[in-house]
Amino acid sequence: MTTQAEITAFLAAEFPQTPCTVEAVGQGKATVRHPIGENELRPGGTVSGPVMMAVADVALYVALLGVIGIVPLAVTTSLNINFLRKPAADRDIVARCELLKVGRSLAVGEVALFSDGDDHPVAHAVGTYAIPAERSGA
Amino acid sequence: MTTQAEITAFLAAEFPQTPCTVEAVGQGKATVRHPIGENELRPGGTVSGPVMMAVADVALYVALLGVIGIVPLAVTTSLNINFLRKPAADRDIVARCELLKVGRSLAVGEVALFSDGDDHPVAHAVGTYAIPAERSGA
Amino acid sequence: MTTQAEITAFLAAEFPQTPCTVEAVGQGKATVRHPIGENELRPGGTVSGPVMMAVADVALYVALLGVIGIVPLAVTTSLNINFLRKPAADRDIVARCELLKVGRSLAVGEVALFSDGDDHPVAHAVGTYAIPAERSGA
Amino acid sequence: MTTQAEITAFLAAEFPQTPCTVEAVGQGKATVRHPIGENELRPGGTVSGPVMMAVADVALYVALLGVIGIVPLAVTTSLNINFLRKPAADRDIVARCELLKVGRSLAVGEVALFSDGDDHPVAHAVGTYAIPAERSGA
Repeated sequence: MTTQAEITAFLAAEFPQTPCTVEAVGQGKATVRHPIGENELRPGGTVSGPVMMAVADVALYVALLGVIGIVPLAVTTSLNINFLRKPAADRDIVARCELLKVGRSLAVGEVALFSDGDDHPVAHAVGTYAIPAERSGA
Repeated sequence: MTTQAEITAFLAAEFPQTPCTVEAVGQGKATVRHPIGENELRPGGTVSGPVMMAVADVALYVALLGVIGIVPLAVTTSLNINFLRKPAADRDIVARCELLKVGRSLAVGEVALFSDGDDHPVAHAVGTYAIPAERSGA
Repeated sequence: MTTQAEITAFLAAEFPQTPCTVEAVGQGKATVRHPIGENELRPGGTVSGPVMMAVADVALYVALLGVIGIVPLAVTTSLNINFLRKPAADRDIVARCELLKVGRSLAVGEVALFSDGDDHPVAHAVGTYAIPAERSGA
Repeated sequence: MTTQAEITAFLAAEFPQTPCTVEAVGQGKATVRHPIGENELRPGGTVSGPVMMAVADVALYVALLGVIGIVPLAVTTSLNINFLRKPAADRDIVARCELLKVGRSLAVGEVALFSDGDDHPVAHAVGTYAIPAERSGA
């Protein structure tokens, strides 16, 4: 079981470009937050799709690292996302991931994304991660 | 039929944060290029998944604007992407989109993504866009 | 709010070929059961993928009819399914659907599928339905 | 390279319930045909979604067997389908699959589905198959 602090340190070292922060991780779940500013908006004053895809992907990765340990080379093999509602332009995106399966070589999870403070999801994603045979996990 | 120059000008004005350039557009197709540098890489020396999702999304948007005109509020409603091969760390990502359907309110297209110069796709995406009822198209 | 009995009668009249039964419907949710016999199996003694896709599709349809009334012409516009575990060859497939959004023209929902009596999902699907502008709903 | 006759014989023996016939297979591609009758229709006089999902799945399986040999235990791990146009009620569904990747343990392919004789696809699917480590292929 990898801790929130370990995953935060790993992301800071290996993914310095991600603005996501880890709010919770454990038991096959994770909560990740992405601040929203001018760079994340698109015409219509809404959060761009690729930003939400990136948050979903990070949430899946964090949930998985929480289960299998720090395995940098776990990679996304597929992601399917549906955009449900217009996100607020002035609120963080919060993603809650729950893994559906963690097999030997493949993990599958789902992610609900929210504008912070609103209970209705703005998007929903399902993604799969390939877990390398040789884990360099801590 | 919107021209490549019109779409390029629109993206520069409305999506200044995108590093993508439009290489071709017309007849329900589009080719888009994304330069790859340190910011786009992840552990393992490969292009991060969210970068490829973003390129696929832009390619769909450009192909659609080529057909329906400059409609800023056309928005992605879903995207499904499969990652097929490890992209080269030192080559641009080139995305080729072909629309499968452009209906009144919904468009669907597929995108093949390549490391520039390699014929085998590194990823493949299918996305849907919602077209607003009131188009502000040029 | 459409009742379970109304939906069951509708399915019997309009989809006589489906072996699915409606176990529960309401509040944007539905539970549907599909008996498994020789016809539903494939090599390896497991339930064939298309059978599970069909159950997922029916569960989404039932959950949606529960919300919008009997609208026969609501049609699936997309379905994404991930197969997670080998289903039991001698147990019913039970699908539990929860709608994520019911808009004016589009609904999105997710479905978890189980071998009856087992808590771990054998598959997970996300689907979208188009709702016709002119509803002939009861 | 498995021949069309070998795959047809295998399907007849192991999937006797499928009404699909193999029209062509080879070089990572396959064409499969599904006759349409009363059983395949739904309200609105159109082919039901699950029928098209099943045809897409068979087309992927046939294309894959064409490459890796008769491996009965290759199983679908995911399928994503978009429905594009209303299929004709009185024409066969013809599916054309092209594999995008055949790796050691995973294959990915796309499928375009047509009402026989019409050039515009009625649906488009992308699916993944898991290839077992121990192949019992001929």
